[in-house]
Amino acid sequence: MATGVILLSGGIDSTTLAYHYNARGYALHCLSFDYGQRHRKELGASAEIARRLGARHDVLDISSVGSLLSSSGSTLVGVGDIPEGHYSAENMKSTIVPNRNAIMLSVAFGVAVAEGAEFVGYAAHGGDHFIYPDCRPAFVDAFRAMEVFSVGCELPNLRAPFLHMTKADLVRIGTNLHVPFTSTWSCYVGEDRHCGRCGTCVERAEAFSLAGIPDPTLYEDPEYWKVVVTARA
Amino acid sequence: MATGVILLSGGIDSTTLAYHYNARGYALHCLSFDYGQRHRKELGASAEIARRLGARHDVLDISSVGSLLSSSGSTLVGVGDIPEGHYSAENMKSTIVPNRNAIMLSVAFGVAVAEGAEFVGYAAHGGDHFIYPDCRPAFVDAFRAMEVFSVGCELPNLRAPFLHMTKADLVRIGTNLHVPFTSTWSCYVGEDRHCGRCGTCVERAEAFSLAGIPDPTLYEDPEYWKVVVTARA
Repeated sequence: MATGVILLSGGIDSTTLAYHYNARGYALHCLSFDYGQRHRKELGASAEIARRLGARHDVLDISSVGSLLSSSGSTLVGVGDIPEGHYSAENMKSTIVPNRNAIMLSVAFGVAVAEGAEFVGYAAHGGDHFIYPDCRPAFVDAFRAMEVFSVGCELPNLRAPFLHMTKADLVRIGTNLHVPFTSTWSCYVGEDRHCGRCGTCVERAEAFSLAGIPDPTLYEDPEYWKVVVTARA
Repeated sequence: MATGVILLSGGIDSTTLAYHYNARGYALHCLSFDYGQRHRKELGASAEIARRLGARHDVLDISSVGSLLSSSGSTLVGVGDIPEGHYSAENMKSTIVPNRNAIMLSVAFGVAVAEGAEFVGYAAHGGDHFIYPDCRPAFVDAFRAMEVFSVGCELPNLRAPFLHMTKADLVRIGTNLHVPFTSTWSCYVGEDRHCGRCGTCVERAEAFSLAGIPDPTLYEDPEYWKVVVTARA
């Protein structure tokens, strides 16, 4: 059976990616990373998703790396408060962890080569492009080209099938694939429930709304996203 | 003071790189990696080199990553015997750890961005090109291009000043910079002394000979390299 290695954070995007390739018959090896993120809770979500798919799952401890990256001032690795508001707003830049996705993709490529996998799957989508340079098409193309030289062959290759889609598109695709959305985790704050106020909670709630699909998520503040979206309209 | 982040393994190449940039007045942050390599002994050498330079040094524990990469069958992460012979010979391919340098460079870029460093230094040289795709100029160029997109700016940039030099050139440069060669560690076997028989020991001994500089290294087998080099001539 052909295999793929995918980055699985346990959010809607990467979970939908896992279901997407699972439905296409690939055996998946799902990788998650403990990089000292505040929302370490996502690691439990990713384990649950992999278990449901019967996929191999490893959580890689790179917390020593995350601890050095925290000097960037990134709120995602524990410095200051997670910003509230719309995902595409300027203040969301404090959630950037420098070079994080290149680091995780590099590891995934190493694992994919070691295991003879056919591809590395990456769930970046159009909604990520505003804030995160390492989710944009130019990055994906350059990373793919780099890996051909790094490993000295064309396979595994980098696949990012959602790169030009919106998160609302992913909610629709995920619904068709029977993704268990209540088992996924987005919130950057990482408390018991989704906060409903951080950028990724707002993006999540807005995506369900735009997709016209009822949002099953329990938010601490279920109304805030509407205020933010209305204010931007 | 301008700063640079360098990958420091504690061997001749990266130590000479550290001395090179130290002599140019850069404050250095040296990164070493515990990826489960058999020759973990190199981590002590890198700590000693950083101490001598008064440079910041961190050993990043990514052994969880190394443990997944070991399924590649790489002898460097503990599967089977380290091959003996000339560094450029076909059997040296068993020492490849897939995508290792891309992983370490990605981490170094993250750290460099977090700290506002000017560059990431990489000691790849011409002698590495035969076996290791991730030491070749095409890889270095592609990686540099990828990072501009990943971090969204031109700096830090990737510098690999030895890329077109031989290891003998590095021995000469290191000698001029007063590199303490006896404090460096190359041997992949990682016992008390350099074995003198593995590819990197043979390369080391040959480099001193080609540079016309006495080799201060204590080898377990100090004659083997001559046999190998003569056999290839």
